[in-house]
Amino acid sequence: MSTPRSRAVVLLSGGLDSTTCLAVATRRDGHEAHALSFDYGQRHRSEVEHARQVAEALGAASHRVVRIDLSQAITSALTDPGIEIPKDRPLEEMGADVPSTYVPARNTIFLAFALGLAETIGARAIYLGVNALDYSGYPDCRPEFVEAFAALAQVACPQDPPAIEAPLLHLDKAGIIRLGVSLGVDYSITHSCYDPAPDGRACGRCDACRLRARGFREAGVPDPTRYVGP
Amino acid sequence: MSTPRSRAVVLLSGGLDSTTCLAVATRRDGHEAHALSFDYGQRHRSEVEHARQVAEALGAASHRVVRIDLSQAITSALTDPGIEIPKDRPLEEMGADVPSTYVPARNTIFLAFALGLAETIGARAIYLGVNALDYSGYPDCRPEFVEAFAALAQVACPQDPPAIEAPLLHLDKAGIIRLGVSLGVDYSITHSCYDPAPDGRACGRCDACRLRARGFREAGVPDPTRYVGP
Repeated sequence: MSTPRSRAVVLLSGGLDSTTCLAVATRRDGHEAHALSFDYGQRHRSEVEHARQVAEALGAASHRVVRIDLSQAITSALTDPGIEIPKDRPLEEMGADVPSTYVPARNTIFLAFALGLAETIGARAIYLGVNALDYSGYPDCRPEFVEAFAALAQVACPQDPPAIEAPLLHLDKAGIIRLGVSLGVDYSITHSCYDPAPDGRACGRCDACRLRARGFREAGVPDPTRYVGP
Repeated sequence: MSTPRSRAVVLLSGGLDSTTCLAVATRRDGHEAHALSFDYGQRHRSEVEHARQVAEALGAASHRVVRIDLSQAITSALTDPGIEIPKDRPLEEMGADVPSTYVPARNTIFLAFALGLAETIGARAIYLGVNALDYSGYPDCRPEFVEAFAALAQVACPQDPPAIEAPLLHLDKAGIIRLGVSLGVDYSITHSCYDPAPDGRACGRCDACRLRARGFREAGVPDPTRYVGP
Protein backbone atom coordinates (compact mmCIF):
# COMPACT_ATOMS: atom_id res chain seq x y z
CA MET A 1 0.00 0.00 0.00
CA SER A 2 1.51 3.30 -1.00
CA THR A 3 1.49 6.32 1.29
CA PRO A 4 -1.01 8.97 0.18
CA ARG A 5 0.76 11.97 -1.27
CA SER A 6 0.51 15.20 0.73
CA ARG A 7 -1.56 17.91 -0.85
CA ALA A 8 -0.27 21.20 -2.20
CA VAL A 9 -2.05 24.19 -3.70
CA VAL A 10 -0.27 25.52 -6.79
CA LEU A 11 -1.00 29.00 -8.16
CA LEU A 12 -1.20 28.48 -11.91
CA SER A 13 -1.46 31.19 -14.55
CA GLY A 14 -0.55 28.90 -17.43
CA GLY A 15 2.65 30.87 -17.97
CA LEU A 16 6.18 29.56 -18.12
CA ASP A 17 6.99 30.11 -14.44
CA SER A 18 3.83 28.75 -12.82
CA THR A 19 3.83 25.75 -15.17
CA THR A 20 7.37 24.90 -14.13
CA CYS A 21 6.32 25.40 -10.51
CA LEU A 22 3.49 22.89 -10.91
CA ALA A 23 5.91 20.38 -12.42
CA VAL A 24 8.22 20.89 -9.41
CA ALA A 25 5.34 20.36 -6.97
CA THR A 26 4.19 17.14 -8.62
CA ARG A 27 7.11 15.55 -10.41
CA ARG A 28 10.01 16.66 -8.18
CA ASP A 29 8.40 17.10 -4.74
CA GLY A 30 5.75 14.39 -5.16
CA HIS A 31 2.70 16.34 -4.02
CA GLU A 32 -0.91 15.79 -4.98
CA ALA A 33 -1.28 19.19 -6.64
CA HIS A 34 -4.46 21.27 -6.58
CA ALA A 35 -4.10 24.03 -9.14
CA LEU A 36 -5.69 27.44 -8.57
CA SER A 37 -6.14 30.00 -11.34
CA PHE A 38 -7.89 33.36 -11.49
CA ASP A 39 -10.06 34.93 -14.09
CA TYR A 40 -9.53 38.45 -12.79
CA GLY A 41 -10.43 40.63 -15.71
CA GLN A 42 -6.97 40.39 -17.23
CA ARG A 43 -6.66 41.38 -20.89
CA HIS A 44 -4.79 38.21 -21.58
CA ARG A 45 -7.69 36.10 -20.36
CA SER A 46 -6.69 33.33 -22.74
CA GLU A 47 -4.16 32.43 -20.04
CA VAL A 48 -7.01 30.70 -18.20
CA GLU A 49 -7.42 28.29 -21.11
CA HIS A 50 -3.67 27.65 -21.11
CA ALA A 51 -3.85 26.99 -17.37
CA ARG A 52 -6.49 24.32 -18.02
CA GLN A 53 -4.30 22.59 -20.58
CA VAL A 54 -1.28 22.75 -18.28
CA ALA A 55 -3.18 21.41 -15.26
CA GLU A 56 -4.34 18.45 -17.31
CA ALA A 57 -0.98 17.80 -18.96
CA LEU A 58 0.84 17.80 -15.61
CA GLY A 59 -1.76 15.67 -13.84
CA ALA A 60 -3.08 18.14 -11.28
CA ALA A 61 -5.54 16.40 -8.94
CA SER A 62 -7.94 19.35 -9.33
CA HIS A 63 -8.03 22.74 -11.03
CA ARG A 64 -10.15 25.64 -9.82
CA VAL A 65 -10.60 28.85 -11.77
CA VAL A 66 -11.80 31.51 -9.37
CA ARG A 67 -13.51 34.49 -10.94
CA ILE A 68 -12.75 37.79 -9.21
CA ASP A 69 -13.13 41.14 -10.88
CA LEU A 70 -10.17 43.07 -9.50
CA SER A 71 -11.21 46.16 -11.41
CA GLN A 72 -13.96 46.64 -8.82
CA ALA A 73 -11.25 48.03 -6.54
CA ILE A 74 -7.89 48.05 -8.31
CA THR A 75 -6.47 49.78 -11.38
CA SER A 76 -3.71 48.44 -13.62
CA ALA A 77 -2.73 48.30 -17.28
CA LEU A 78 -3.37 44.56 -17.16
CA THR A 79 -7.05 45.04 -16.36
CA ASP A 80 -7.80 48.50 -17.77
CA PRO A 81 -8.03 48.66 -21.58
CA GLY A 82 -7.44 52.43 -21.32
CA ILE A 83 -3.85 51.99 -20.13
CA GLU A 84 -1.17 50.98 -22.61
CA ILE A 85 0.96 47.86 -22.12
CA PRO A 86 4.65 48.87 -22.31
CA LYS A 87 6.40 47.45 -25.36
CA ASP A 88 10.03 47.01 -26.41
CA ARG A 89 11.46 47.92 -23.01
CA PRO A 90 15.17 47.17 -22.85
CA LEU A 91 15.69 44.03 -20.78
CA GLU A 92 18.20 45.81 -18.55
CA GLU A 93 15.57 48.38 -17.54
CA MET A 94 13.17 45.79 -16.20
CA GLY A 95 13.32 45.46 -12.45
CA ALA A 96 14.55 49.03 -12.05
CA ASP A 97 11.06 50.47 -11.67
CA VAL A 98 7.48 49.32 -11.26
CA PRO A 99 5.74 49.26 -14.67
CA SER A 100 2.08 49.96 -15.40
CA THR A 101 1.46 46.23 -15.77
CA TYR A 102 1.93 45.87 -12.01
CA VAL A 103 -1.43 44.96 -10.45
CA PRO A 104 -1.55 46.29 -6.87
CA ALA A 105 -1.80 43.49 -4.32
CA ARG A 106 -2.42 40.83 -6.96
CA ASN A 107 -0.09 38.21 -5.53
CA THR A 108 -1.31 39.02 -2.02
CA ILE A 109 -4.91 38.39 -3.15
CA PHE A 110 -3.98 35.20 -5.01
CA LEU A 111 -2.01 33.86 -2.05
CA ALA A 112 -4.86 34.76 0.31
CA PHE A 113 -7.25 32.63 -1.76
CA ALA A 114 -4.65 29.87 -1.91
CA LEU A 115 -4.44 29.99 1.88
CA GLY A 116 -8.20 29.57 2.17
CA LEU A 117 -8.13 26.65 -0.24
CA ALA A 118 -5.17 25.07 1.56
CA GLU A 119 -7.11 25.23 4.83
CA THR A 120 -10.23 23.86 3.18
CA ILE A 121 -8.54 20.81 1.63
CA GLY A 122 -5.82 20.33 4.23
CA ALA A 123 -2.87 21.18 1.97
CA ARG A 124 0.56 21.28 3.59
CA ALA A 125 2.13 23.69 1.08
CA ILE A 126 1.33 26.51 -1.32
CA TYR A 127 3.53 26.82 -4.41
CA LEU A 128 3.95 30.00 -6.39
CA GLY A 129 6.18 30.61 -9.36
CA VAL A 130 7.59 34.05 -8.58
CA ASN A 131 11.17 34.78 -9.40
CA ALA A 132 13.24 37.75 -8.43
CA LEU A 133 15.89 37.72 -11.14
CA ASP A 134 14.24 37.90 -14.55
CA TYR A 135 11.15 39.80 -13.53
CA SER A 136 9.33 43.01 -14.33
CA GLY A 137 10.08 44.86 -11.09
CA TYR A 138 6.96 43.85 -9.19
CA PRO A 139 7.42 44.19 -5.41
CA ASP A 140 5.29 41.13 -4.74
CA CYS A 141 7.74 38.84 -6.52
CA ARG A 142 10.64 39.46 -4.12
CA PRO A 143 11.98 37.09 -1.45
CA GLU A 144 10.95 39.45 1.37
CA PHE A 145 7.36 39.35 0.12
CA VAL A 146 7.31 35.55 0.09
CA GLU A 147 8.82 35.46 3.60
CA ALA A 148 6.28 37.97 4.93
CA PHE A 149 3.38 35.99 3.51
CA ALA A 150 4.77 32.78 5.03
CA ALA A 151 4.90 34.53 8.40
CA LEU A 152 1.32 35.73 7.93
CA ALA A 153 0.14 32.19 7.12
CA GLN A 154 1.69 30.98 10.38
CA VAL A 155 -0.66 33.19 12.42
CA ALA A 156 -3.67 33.31 10.08
CA CYS A 157 -4.46 29.59 10.25
CA PRO A 158 -6.05 27.94 13.27
CA GLN A 159 -3.83 24.88 12.81
CA ASP A 160 -1.23 23.30 10.49
CA PRO A 161 -0.39 26.41 8.43
CA PRO A 162 0.90 25.52 4.96
CA ALA A 163 4.48 26.24 3.97
CA ILE A 164 4.91 28.82 1.22
CA GLU A 165 7.14 27.37 -1.50
CA ALA A 166 8.68 29.55 -4.21
CA PRO A 167 11.08 27.12 -5.86
CA LEU A 168 11.95 29.44 -8.77
CA LEU A 169 12.73 32.48 -6.62
CA HIS A 170 16.44 32.55 -7.28
CA LEU A 171 16.53 31.10 -10.79
CA ASP A 172 16.83 33.11 -13.99
CA LYS A 173 14.49 32.37 -16.91
CA ALA A 174 17.00 30.10 -18.59
CA GLY A 175 17.41 28.16 -15.35
CA ILE A 176 13.65 27.83 -14.99
CA ILE A 177 13.35 26.51 -18.55
CA ARG A 178 16.16 24.01 -18.00
CA LEU A 179 14.48 22.83 -14.79
CA GLY A 180 11.15 22.46 -16.55
CA VAL A 181 12.66 20.58 -19.49
CA SER A 182 14.35 18.20 -17.03
CA LEU A 183 10.88 17.52 -15.57
CA GLY A 184 9.34 16.92 -19.00
CA VAL A 185 7.40 20.19 -19.30
CA ASP A 186 6.00 20.95 -22.75
CA TYR A 187 6.28 24.73 -22.97
CA SER A 188 4.30 24.93 -26.20
CA ILE A 189 1.06 24.91 -24.19
CA THR A 190 2.18 27.72 -21.87
CA HIS A 191 1.45 31.38 -22.37
CA SER A 192 3.25 34.44 -21.03
CA CYS A 193 2.24 37.43 -23.24
CA TYR A 194 0.46 40.38 -21.59
CA ASP A 195 -1.12 41.51 -24.84
CA PRO A 196 -1.79 38.59 -27.17
CA ALA A 197 -3.39 38.91 -30.61
CA PRO A 198 -7.03 37.81 -30.95
CA ASP A 199 -5.84 34.50 -32.39
CA GLY A 200 -3.75 33.88 -29.26
CA ARG A 201 -0.31 34.55 -30.73
CA ALA A 202 2.15 36.35 -28.45
CA CYS A 203 3.04 40.00 -29.19
CA GLY A 204 6.76 39.40 -28.78
CA ARG A 205 7.28 42.90 -27.45
CA CYS A 206 5.88 43.14 -23.90
CA ASP A 207 8.12 42.52 -20.88
CA ALA A 208 6.78 38.99 -20.45
CA CYS A 209 7.48 38.05 -24.08
CA ARG A 210 10.95 39.57 -24.06
CA LEU A 211 12.02 37.86 -20.84
CA ARG A 212 10.62 34.56 -22.06
CA ALA A 213 12.29 34.72 -25.48
CA ARG A 214 15.66 35.53 -23.93
CA GLY A 215 15.22 32.61 -21.51
CA PHE A 216 14.83 30.11 -24.33
CA ARG A 217 17.82 31.62 -26.17
CA GLU A 218 20.03 31.45 -23.09
CA ALA A 219 18.86 27.95 -22.17
CA GLY A 220 19.62 26.73 -25.68
CA VAL A 221 16.10 25.35 -25.92
CA PRO A 222 13.99 25.95 -29.07
CA ASP A 223 11.31 28.56 -28.30
CA PRO A 224 7.92 26.96 -29.06
CA THR A 225 6.02 30.26 -28.71
CA ARG A 226 3.87 31.40 -31.63
CA TYR A 227 4.64 35.08 -32.10
CA VAL A 228 2.80 37.69 -34.14
CA GLY A 229 4.97 39.11 -36.81
CA PRO A 230 7.10 38.68 -39.81
CA MET B 1 -7.80 76.85 2.57
CA SER B 2 -8.13 73.66 4.56
CA THR B 3 -5.65 70.81 4.27
CA PRO B 4 -7.08 67.90 2.30
CA ARG B 5 -7.81 64.96 4.56
CA SER B 6 -5.65 61.89 4.11
CA ARG B 7 -7.40 58.88 2.67
CA ALA B 8 -8.13 55.64 4.47
CA VAL B 9 -9.70 52.40 3.30
CA VAL B 10 -12.18 51.01 5.85
CA LEU B 11 -13.36 47.39 5.72
CA LEU B 12 -17.07 47.61 6.35
CA SER B 13 -19.46 44.70 6.92
CA GLY B 14 -22.23 46.85 8.31
CA GLY B 15 -21.87 45.16 11.68
CA LEU B 16 -21.31 46.78 15.04
CA ASP B 17 -17.52 46.57 15.00
CA SER B 18 -16.80 47.74 11.47
CA THR B 19 -19.34 50.56 11.80
CA THR B 20 -17.60 51.80 14.94
CA CYS B 21 -14.30 51.46 13.10
CA LEU B 22 -15.57 53.67 10.26
CA ALA B 23 -16.68 56.27 12.80
CA VAL B 24 -13.20 56.20 14.36
CA ALA B 25 -11.53 56.63 10.96
CA THR B 26 -13.69 59.61 9.99
CA ARG B 27 -14.91 61.33 13.13
CA ARG B 28 -12.00 60.64 15.49
CA ASP B 29 -8.99 60.31 13.17
CA GLY B 30 -10.24 62.73 10.51
CA HIS B 31 -9.65 60.59 7.42
CA GLU B 32 -11.45 60.74 4.11
CA ALA B 33 -12.84 57.21 4.36
CA HIS B 34 -13.32 54.87 1.43
CA ALA B 35 -15.46 51.97 2.57
CA LEU B 36 -14.96 48.48 1.16
CA SER B 37 -17.51 45.69 1.56
CA PHE B 38 -17.73 42.19 0.13
CA ASP B 39 -20.62 40.23 -1.26
CA TYR B 40 -18.91 36.87 -0.80
CA GLY B 41 -21.75 34.43 -0.82
CA GLN B 42 -22.45 34.85 2.89
CA ARG B 43 -25.85 33.63 4.08
CA HIS B 44 -26.40 36.91 5.85
CA ARG B 45 -26.05 38.81 2.60
CA SER B 46 -28.36 41.50 3.91
CA GLU B 47 -25.26 42.83 5.66
CA VAL B 48 -24.28 44.41 2.36
CA GLU B 49 -27.42 46.56 2.48
CA HIS B 50 -26.63 47.54 6.05
CA ALA B 51 -23.11 48.46 4.97
CA ARG B 52 -24.58 50.81 2.36
CA GLN B 53 -26.72 52.56 4.94
CA VAL B 54 -23.80 52.84 7.36
CA ALA B 55 -21.43 54.22 4.71
CA GLU B 56 -23.94 56.89 3.85
CA ALA B 57 -24.82 57.73 7.45
CA LEU B 58 -21.17 58.14 8.42
CA GLY B 59 -20.25 60.16 5.35
CA ALA B 60 -17.84 57.76 3.63
CA ALA B 61 -16.29 59.42 0.56
CA SER B 62 -16.95 56.25 -1.44
CA HIS B 63 -18.29 52.76 -0.89
CA ARG B 64 -17.35 49.78 -3.02
CA VAL B 65 -19.05 46.39 -2.77
CA VAL B 66 -16.74 43.81 -4.29
CA ARG B 67 -18.38 40.60 -5.37
CA ILE B 68 -16.23 37.51 -4.79
CA ASP B 69 -17.64 34.03 -4.52
CA LEU B 70 -15.44 32.47 -1.83
CA SER B 71 -17.24 29.16 -2.18
CA GLN B 72 -15.31 28.64 -5.40
CA ALA B 73 -12.35 27.66 -3.22
CA ILE B 74 -13.32 27.83 0.45
CA THR B 75 -15.81 26.00 2.67
CA SER B 76 -17.47 27.42 5.79
CA ALA B 77 -20.82 27.38 7.58
CA LEU B 78 -21.20 31.06 6.66
CA THR B 79 -21.21 30.29 2.94
CA ASP B 80 -22.44 26.68 2.80
CA PRO B 81 -26.16 26.21 3.49
CA GLY B 82 -25.43 22.55 4.27
CA ILE B 83 -23.50 23.41 7.43
CA GLU B 84 -25.39 24.50 10.53
CA ILE B 85 -24.71 27.82 12.26
CA PRO B 86 -23.98 27.14 15.95
CA LYS B 87 -26.67 28.49 18.28
CA ASP B 88 -26.90 29.18 22.03
CA ARG B 89 -23.18 28.67 22.65
CA PRO B 90 -22.25 29.76 26.17
CA LEU B 91 -20.39 33.07 25.95
CA GLU B 92 -17.50 31.72 27.99
CA GLU B 93 -16.90 28.97 25.40
CA MET B 94 -16.38 31.43 22.55
CA GLY B 95 -12.74 32.04 21.82
CA ALA B 96 -11.76 28.62 23.17
CA ASP B 97 -12.04 26.91 19.81
CA VAL B 98 -12.58 27.75 16.14
CA PRO B 99 -16.27 27.41 15.26
CA SER B 100 -17.75 26.32 11.93
CA THR B 101 -18.59 29.95 11.13
CA TYR B 102 -14.87 30.62 10.69
CA VAL B 103 -14.19 31.34 7.00
CA PRO B 104 -10.63 30.26 6.13
CA ALA B 105 -8.47 33.20 5.09
CA ARG B 106 -11.42 35.60 4.91
CA ASN B 107 -9.73 38.49 6.65
CA THR B 108 -6.54 37.85 4.70
CA ILE B 109 -8.51 38.06 1.45
CA PHE B 110 -10.40 41.19 2.53
CA LEU B 111 -7.19 42.91 3.66
CA ALA B 112 -5.47 41.93 0.42
CA PHE B 113 -8.22 43.67 -1.58
CA ALA B 114 -8.03 46.64 0.78
CA LEU B 115 -4.30 46.81 0.11
CA GLY B 116 -4.91 46.91 -3.64
CA LEU B 117 -7.51 49.64 -3.22
CA ALA B 118 -5.22 51.60 -0.89
CA GLU B 119 -2.47 51.51 -3.51
CA THR B 120 -4.91 52.45 -6.26
CA ILE B 121 -6.31 55.53 -4.47
CA GLY B 122 -3.20 56.45 -2.47
CA ALA B 123 -4.67 55.72 0.97
CA ARG B 124 -2.31 56.03 3.93
CA ALA B 125 -4.16 53.62 6.20
CA ILE B 126 -6.43 50.57 6.19
CA TYR B 127 -8.88 50.24 9.07
CA LEU B 128 -10.41 46.98 10.17
CA GLY B 129 -12.72 46.37 13.08
CA VAL B 130 -11.35 43.13 14.49
CA ASN B 131 -11.25 42.67 18.21
CA ALA B 132 -9.58 39.96 20.21
CA LEU B 133 -11.60 40.04 23.42
CA ASP B 134 -15.27 39.46 22.61
CA TYR B 135 -14.82 37.35 19.53
CA SER B 136 -15.70 33.93 18.19
CA GLY B 137 -12.22 32.42 18.30
CA TYR B 138 -11.19 33.29 14.76
CA PRO B 139 -7.38 33.26 14.35
CA ASP B 140 -7.49 36.16 11.89
CA CYS B 141 -8.87 38.53 14.52
CA ARG B 142 -5.83 38.35 16.82
CA PRO B 143 -3.16 41.02 17.33
CA GLU B 144 -0.44 38.80 15.85
CA PHE B 145 -2.46 38.47 12.65
CA VAL B 146 -2.85 42.24 12.33
CA GLU B 147 0.87 42.72 12.96
CA ALA B 148 1.82 40.09 10.38
CA PHE B 149 -0.39 41.69 7.75
CA ALA B 150 1.09 45.11 8.51
CA ALA B 151 4.56 43.64 7.98
CA LEU B 152 3.40 42.08 4.69
CA ALA B 153 2.03 45.42 3.49
CA GLN B 154 5.43 47.00 4.14
CA VAL B 155 7.07 44.75 1.54
CA ALA B 156 4.13 44.18 -0.82
CA CYS B 157 3.77 47.80 -1.90
CA PRO B 158 6.18 49.51 -4.26
CA GLN B 159 5.97 52.71 -2.22
CA ASP B 160 4.17 54.35 0.72
CA PRO B 161 2.65 51.23 2.26
CA PRO B 162 -0.51 51.97 4.23
CA ALA B 163 -0.60 51.51 8.00
CA ILE B 164 -2.94 48.77 9.25
CA GLU B 165 -5.20 50.23 11.94
CA ALA B 166 -7.27 48.00 14.22
CA PRO B 167 -8.55 50.54 16.76
CA LEU B 168 -10.96 48.09 18.44
CA LEU B 169 -8.43 45.30 18.91
CA HIS B 170 -8.20 45.54 22.68
CA LEU B 171 -11.72 46.73 23.49
CA ASP B 172 -14.55 44.52 24.66
CA LYS B 173 -18.00 44.84 23.01
CA ALA B 174 -19.27 47.20 25.69
CA GLY B 175 -16.21 49.39 25.21
CA ILE B 176 -16.75 49.39 21.43
CA ILE B 177 -20.39 50.41 21.88
CA ARG B 178 -19.45 53.22 24.29
CA LEU B 179 -16.82 54.46 21.84
CA GLY B 180 -19.34 54.39 18.99
CA VAL B 181 -22.00 56.18 21.00
CA SER B 182 -19.45 58.88 21.89
CA LEU B 183 -18.88 59.33 18.14
CA GLY B 184 -22.60 59.54 17.39
CA VAL B 185 -23.04 56.10 15.82
CA ASP B 186 -26.65 54.97 15.34
CA TYR B 187 -26.45 51.23 15.93
CA SER B 188 -30.02 50.63 14.80
CA ILE B 189 -28.81 50.49 11.19
CA THR B 190 -26.04 47.97 11.91
CA HIS B 191 -26.35 44.23 11.58
CA SER B 192 -24.39 41.43 13.25
CA CYS B 193 -26.46 38.23 13.00
CA TYR B 194 -25.01 35.24 11.10
CA ASP B 195 -28.42 33.73 10.43
CA PRO B 196 -31.09 36.42 10.11
CA ALA B 197 -34.76 35.71 9.39
CA PRO B 198 -36.02 36.43 5.86
CA ASP B 199 -37.44 39.73 7.12
CA GLY B 200 -34.00 40.77 8.36
CA ARG B 201 -34.57 40.32 12.09
CA ALA B 202 -31.63 38.92 14.06
CA CYS B 203 -31.81 35.32 15.34
CA GLY B 204 -30.61 36.30 18.84
CA ARG B 205 -28.89 32.94 19.27
CA CYS B 206 -25.77 32.83 17.10
CA ASP B 207 -22.38 33.87 18.51
CA ALA B 208 -22.58 37.29 16.88
CA CYS B 209 -26.04 38.03 18.32
CA ARG B 210 -25.08 36.84 21.80
CA LEU B 211 -21.87 38.86 21.96
CA ARG B 212 -23.68 41.92 20.64
CA ALA B 213 -26.60 41.67 23.08
CA ARG B 214 -24.26 41.29 26.04
CA GLY B 215 -22.27 44.30 24.84
CA PHE B 216 -25.32 46.56 24.93
CA ARG B 217 -26.29 45.21 28.36
CA GLU B 218 -22.81 45.80 29.78
CA ALA B 219 -22.50 49.23 28.18
CA GLY B 220 -25.86 50.27 29.67
CA VAL B 221 -27.00 51.29 26.18
CA PRO B 222 -30.48 50.29 24.95
CA ASP B 223 -30.10 47.50 22.33
CA PRO B 224 -31.76 48.73 19.12
CA THR B 225 -31.55 45.31 17.43
CA ARG B 226 -34.76 43.76 16.11
CA TYR B 227 -34.69 40.16 17.23
CA VAL B 228 -36.87 37.27 16.13
CA GLY B 229 -38.59 36.08 19.18
CA PRO B 230 -41.35 35.20 21.38
